Amino acid sequence: MSIKSHIRTIENYPIEGVMFRDITTLLSNPEGFGEVIEEFVSRYKDVQIDKIAAIESRGFIVAAPLAYLLNVGLVLIRKPGKLPSKTIDQDYELEYGTDKIEVHTDAINKGDKVLILDDLIATGGSAEAAVKLVKKMHGEIIECCFVIDLPDIGGRARLENMGQKVFTLCEFDGE
Amino acid sequence: MSIKSHIRTIENYPIEGVMFRDITTLLSNPEGFGEVIEEFVSRYKDVQIDKIAAIESRGFIVAAPLAYLLNVGLVLIRKPGKLPSKTIDQDYELEYGTDKIEVHTDAINKGDKVLILDDLIATGGSAEAAVKLVKKMHGEIIECCFVIDLPDIGGRARLENMGQKVFTLCEFDGE
Repeated sequence: MSIKSHIRTIENYPIEGVMFRDITTLLSNPEGFGEVIEEFVSRYKDVQIDKIAAIESRGFIVAAPLAYLLNVGLVLIRKPGKLPSKTIDQDYELEYGTDKIEVHTDAINKGDKVLILDDLIATGGSAEAAVKLVKKMHGEIIECCFVIDLPDIGGRARLENMGQKVFTLCEFDGE
Repeated sequence: MSIKSHIRTIENYPIEGVMFRDITTLLSNPEGFGEVIEEFVSRYKDVQIDKIAAIESRGFIVAAPLAYLLNVGLVLIRKPGKLPSKTIDQDYELEYGTDKIEVHTDAINKGDKVLILDDLIATGGSAEAAVKLVKKMHGEIIECCFVIDLPDIGGRARLENMGQKVFTLCEFDGE
């Protein structure tokens, strides 16, 4: 599959034992990046969506062309301290400690149909936090979508166990 | 002008006395965001460009749709520690201290025609560093473009004094 073939694997990054899936080689290839965007457009073009909520920061790169092509609003879900207006936040657990994501309180309205997007799903911690954040704002989540699924790590199953629909374009196991 | 009218100003953010120009309200408005993308497409569609080099992270949001529509590669210029493969970096001065940006060494080839893009130009520190980075890789810079110019702060003049062409979509003075 063309998308997967353009993704580079960096061994032992950021720490020993991790196979990092690097999308920069996909982004720099217009054919590969184009295929990502067109696969998402094809899936969502006839679905009623009001907002795409993109998770910082690689999620922005895929969500922005999709929001433009679908003619829907783009909402930024960011790390703390990056959004200048009033925000609502959600904690999530890391292997050691916790992290947090935020969104502007006026970014999603009650009843908005929201597509959540990130480049990759691993443990699903930040995606689960994004789901909780959108629900706190009374948005209706259409689906959570990702370019890359790492099924061995279980994030997709975690979201599905919460009742979320999940769509991904390619997957890597621990090879 | 429609683009400017969708940008929100947050007073005294991130510090007292600063008027922060917030593009999240532009991004959440499909008409406004669409106008940004279409103005850039209109300017660059007949220009030979090989790569768009986007400055982290709001630059990614505008550069990604543009790279897709122009069918050219997208290159990420990031803060230190975010890119997983071999990088080349460039320091730049802040009001107090210095900061640094990086790019993958294989992201730009000698002779590549490169468009540098960010959401906003203020002092021009990071944009100047991006120019130096692309030059170190022997790329040919076509132009530096931004959604927002803050002309009072002098970044545009700084780039022009280096011999760079600059294109911006709207400007805010200190009002």
